[in-house]
Amino acid sequence: MKTPFLYHGQDNHWLSPTSQSLKLTLVSEAGTLISAIFIRCEPDNEERLIDMERGEIKGRLQYWYGDIPLNKDKATTHYCFKVMQNSRQWWLHGCGTSPRIPGKESHFKYNREDQPPAWVKQQVFYQIFPDRFANGEPEISVKSDEYCLQGDKRPTIAKKWGDPVSDHSADGPSEFYGGDLRGIQNNIDYLQDLGVTALYLNPIFTAPSNHKYDTTDYLNIDPHLGTNAQFAGMVNDLHNRKMKIVLDAVYNHTSVDHPWFDMYQRNNQTQGLGAYAHPDSGFRHHYQFTGDSNQYVSWNGIPTLPKLNFLNPDVQNYIYAGEDAVIKHWLRPPYNIDGWRFDVIHMLGEGAGAENNAHYVKAFREAAKSTNPDCYVLGEHFFEASNWLQGDQEDGAMNYYGFAHPVRAFFARQDIAYHPCQIDAPELMDWLNEARIKLPWLNQLSQLNQLDSHDTVRFLSMLNDDHETMHLALLMLFAYVGTPCLYYGTEVGLQGGQDPDNRRCFPWERTTNSHSTFDYLQQLIGLRKSSYALQQGSLQWLLAENQHFAFARTLNDESVICLINNSACAKTLHLPVWQLGIESGSLKDCLTDDEWQVKDGSLAITLAGKEGLLLSNS
Amino acid sequence: MKTPFLYHGQDNHWLSPTSQSLKLTLVSEAGTLISAIFIRCEPDNEERLIDMERGEIKGRLQYWYGDIPLNKDKATTHYCFKVMQNSRQWWLHGCGTSPRIPGKESHFKYNREDQPPAWVKQQVFYQIFPDRFANGEPEISVKSDEYCLQGDKRPTIAKKWGDPVSDHSADGPSEFYGGDLRGIQNNIDYLQDLGVTALYLNPIFTAPSNHKYDTTDYLNIDPHLGTNAQFAGMVNDLHNRKMKIVLDAVYNHTSVDHPWFDMYQRNNQTQGLGAYAHPDSGFRHHYQFTGDSNQYVSWNGIPTLPKLNFLNPDVQNYIYAGEDAVIKHWLRPPYNIDGWRFDVIHMLGEGAGAENNAHYVKAFREAAKSTNPDCYVLGEHFFEASNWLQGDQEDGAMNYYGFAHPVRAFFARQDIAYHPCQIDAPELMDWLNEARIKLPWLNQLSQLNQLDSHDTVRFLSMLNDDHETMHLALLMLFAYVGTPCLYYGTEVGLQGGQDPDNRRCFPWERTTNSHSTFDYLQQLIGLRKSSYALQQGSLQWLLAENQHFAFARTLNDESVICLINNSACAKTLHLPVWQLGIESGSLKDCLTDDEWQVKDGSLAITLAGKEGLLLSNS
Repeated sequence: MKTPFLYHGQDNHWLSPTSQSLKLTLVSEAGTLISAIFIRCEPDNEERLIDMERGEIKGRLQYWYGDIPLNKDKATTHYCFKVMQNSRQWWLHGCGTSPRIPGKESHFKYNREDQPPAWVKQQVFYQIFPDRFANGEPEISVKSDEYCLQGDKRPTIAKKWGDPVSDHSADGPSEFYGGDLRGIQNNIDYLQDLGVTALYLNPIFTAPSNHKYDTTDYLNIDPHLGTNAQFAGMVNDLHNRKMKIVLDAVYNHTSVDHPWFDMYQRNNQTQGLGAYAHPDSGFRHHYQFTGDSNQYVSWNGIPTLPKLNFLNPDVQNYIYAGEDAVIKHWLRPPYNIDGWRFDVIHMLGEGAGAENNAHYVKAFREAAKSTNPDCYVLGEHFFEASNWLQGDQEDGAMNYYGFAHPVRAFFARQDIAYHPCQIDAPELMDWLNEARIKLPWLNQLSQLNQLDSHDTVRFLSMLNDDHETMHLALLMLFAYVGTPCLYYGTEVGLQGGQDPDNRRCFPWERTTNSHSTFDYLQQLIGLRKSSYALQQGSLQWLLAENQHFAFARTLNDESVICLINNSACAKTLHLPVWQLGIESGSLKDCLTDDEWQVKDGSLAITLAGKEGLLLSNS
Repeated sequence: MKTPFLYHGQDNHWLSPTSQSLKLTLVSEAGTLISAIFIRCEPDNEERLIDMERGEIKGRLQYWYGDIPLNKDKATTHYCFKVMQNSRQWWLHGCGTSPRIPGKESHFKYNREDQPPAWVKQQVFYQIFPDRFANGEPEISVKSDEYCLQGDKRPTIAKKWGDPVSDHSADGPSEFYGGDLRGIQNNIDYLQDLGVTALYLNPIFTAPSNHKYDTTDYLNIDPHLGTNAQFAGMVNDLHNRKMKIVLDAVYNHTSVDHPWFDMYQRNNQTQGLGAYAHPDSGFRHHYQFTGDSNQYVSWNGIPTLPKLNFLNPDVQNYIYAGEDAVIKHWLRPPYNIDGWRFDVIHMLGEGAGAENNAHYVKAFREAAKSTNPDCYVLGEHFFEASNWLQGDQEDGAMNYYGFAHPVRAFFARQDIAYHPCQIDAPELMDWLNEARIKLPWLNQLSQLNQLDSHDTVRFLSMLNDDHETMHLALLMLFAYVGTPCLYYGTEVGLQGGQDPDNRRCFPWERTTNSHSTFDYLQQLIGLRKSSYALQQGSLQWLLAENQHFAFARTLNDESVICLINNSACAKTLHLPVWQLGIESGSLKDCLTDDEWQVKDGSLAITLAGKEGLLLSNS
């Protein structure tokens, strides 16, 4: 027996904080002998089946309505649907329709207590690696031999803008090209022309390396990037343009040169004894040493990055708990940043490992939200982070697991470790669904979706410069659930291999003439910003076979359909748009305004090889 | 490209408490161009890929070996396998093999801290509803009109052994047949003849109803069932026979006649004012009332069962926290029970609902284990209980979700709400895997598997007395992962519909002649008790198609294969027993000693319609 068509959108998951119940809608195909539909929920941890009311029929769609109580003993209410059809039953859940009750992980989820800021999903983010974006103030650029990293081992190297980054990974952190805050600020017009609305900057606080994940001062912008006052001015400029800014928060570890640690004893005079080699240092318990020895715990075994010990109240107060804690400091005037991206947040905790991690992540959230309830709490996770994304810890994550990883597997045939990996469109759909549906809907929308970042090979390079496929992946980025983020230079086809090659200088020379990717992205960004359906519409898969798929994003009466053919061969698709309530009339290509006729609820459309389209009903 | 054969058994999950690592074995088909296999784990919440060593080849099997560190920041270590094959990758996890990384829920799990008692998995349980098993002491049986339930509304009714239970559900709780402890004790020889090794008794503490889920005295056996001394003697007798006993713990709610509540004011003289109608009662906050009114919270809205409020320290002390708390009391001499089955444990908590539930379940566990570290902590859950079964709360659950529910769907085509439900063998396998693999292996083995209970229609009646299919389901019960439990009377084909008809008197007249189900069960129980593979062997699916399936349970060199054909038609199966390392020789039918020849690693075997077999290699 054929699985019946059933669909439920989560897009009505916006309730007033005092709501006690959630109104749900389901659509089925009319005339398919469905005798009853129940919403299954667990108000006090025990199953309750709530009968849905049969509503109107529109086109081929039968509407069903029901209300469920919000769970009181926990923030999250989970539910799915039980559908009675003749001698069978079907369950509709976040991963599809099954003949038996699904596991809880794929039930739909709503969190009534902890919700991400509403503004996040409206943004198009742009990630900047500051040393490589633009040099606005050459006089503060790091000079060759200006100082050394790792004691006296690695002297700084000043390089010419655009010269290749070193292929000696040891030199990676000590090469400088001179990008700075002024360079960013000088190019906000450029970014606004592209259309992006929010910036995420890799670390800008004082640190010896170019990547600055080795902080020596959490309270001051690195002088080679700019000043605190300059930063405050830049944020003010961004806010005047209705733009947002999120900074990188590196609290798992510090530099060995942080005065607290002071491995090379550069800071003794001003700060007192550092923890390294001084068992009696007042900062000794900021880190974890083996007894009185010089052995210490470092992040991922990298000796230049000693791990902070969050069991120490001094660390707690400095980072999040104190009135003037760092997390709060930069969210306040005159800086007023809009959110934090917490580096390797799942790894921090007490002592050597991630002990009691959830406690600290919740405390970070509380510190941030108590300062600015509307700030974005973003976590870095290379792998599944469902535990951190239930609402009470993070608003969203850098969505490697639920976006970059599957999209890379499908389009670039590589996994996140660059191993060969092959999945077809149905597997892509299953993966995206599985990862997404574990989260409350509002957190799904607040995931930061990226194709690549400073930690991965650039997507275009993974594709061996195949611009056609790159455009398909970009289409996916702007059509899928979650907030898109572009890694700087993507718009002008910047290439790059593994770290540090993925951090090449921005090729400003490519902006003087029009660039096909820039033009394409400008259009996609414009569409995304003007379409509530793309920003927050529910997701409905229409087709997934071999190397092609189609899904719709729908909000109220607006549907945008994303079609992708990842095969090199042309392919005719027959889309059951009746499932969206579209029986006839035409659909418009969002980029070209071409029109496509719907006949009897079906759209026959031929996609060229490697073609992707966005169609709209409005 | 065909999914390669890959298999990992969890049966080596027995480590000394000081172990820091877990040795893992994987087998693949030799010669399938697998270039590397990694164990994927997350020692500090970040992926680590650990290269497996290629070991010996035996038959068609290539062995691979690897060690992973046990997680330090949490009790549970989860892992799966990444397999490189040409331009593809495969992931082996608890639900099978996929072309992409699986969600965390289906990773294999090991809990180094909280493990169930070793004895549980060796048992065959037998559940007794005391009023209906055997009357050993007629002089203490409840008499008609001896007292009333629900104030003066429902006088007790004494019924003749074997007379039909009332079809008026209101009379359900007030009918008595006179079964008692002496009746159980008198029949231990019978139970030992059948072969069962452990008893689970529905509640036996003082309570007005026949089911006794409405406790009025947690510290005394109901006088109509026996005395405390008699119970102590019975446990002693069981222990002398190396048998175990688990009792029902009803701590979510009490009877309205409990002296703490005393709705009908029967206990004023001896106990002080009850909570009902006395806002100033010292027991008022044992429950939750609306202000000074008589409105109170009851379990599932059933007014005779007022819900205990665990926020009250007096309740905490009485039930679990105090030195003489009830949970501890019955685990101590002279009673020495071997475990508790906690009634509706997911629903208890603070105030009206299940608030802070996990805290109390952990506290119950701690109270029980502090008294007898080897006791069995068993939870009642009608639905998915993965959260409660990670090791730190329960040892096992009445396994409705992961056994009764799927097995009922497959064999009886009904779900747990008696709605029609149809699944085929592949869906059965998926369901069983999904439910099982979310738990650490040792908890999987300690799940209490049942076909039916005092809360469900009897399985035989769901099958409309189809004994052939019943025998298939029983075969599954004794072959599958988890500890089997028989509901009293199953061995003599006792029927019964919904509560209270599922609690009919034991038909002792059926034991005078041999009974085919009794004989069959006696054999199955004997096999289970003599086979470590059935008790604790890892699970390996060999086949699942349409209405037939086969799986093996393997420990060391012993494999037992369970084959089931649920179709009415004969079916020839070709079992790839090479996957078990069996290339040739013969397999023996465990029940008949018939032998079956293996040729080239394959066993061709024709099952008659509705036939099930157990084959063994030893």
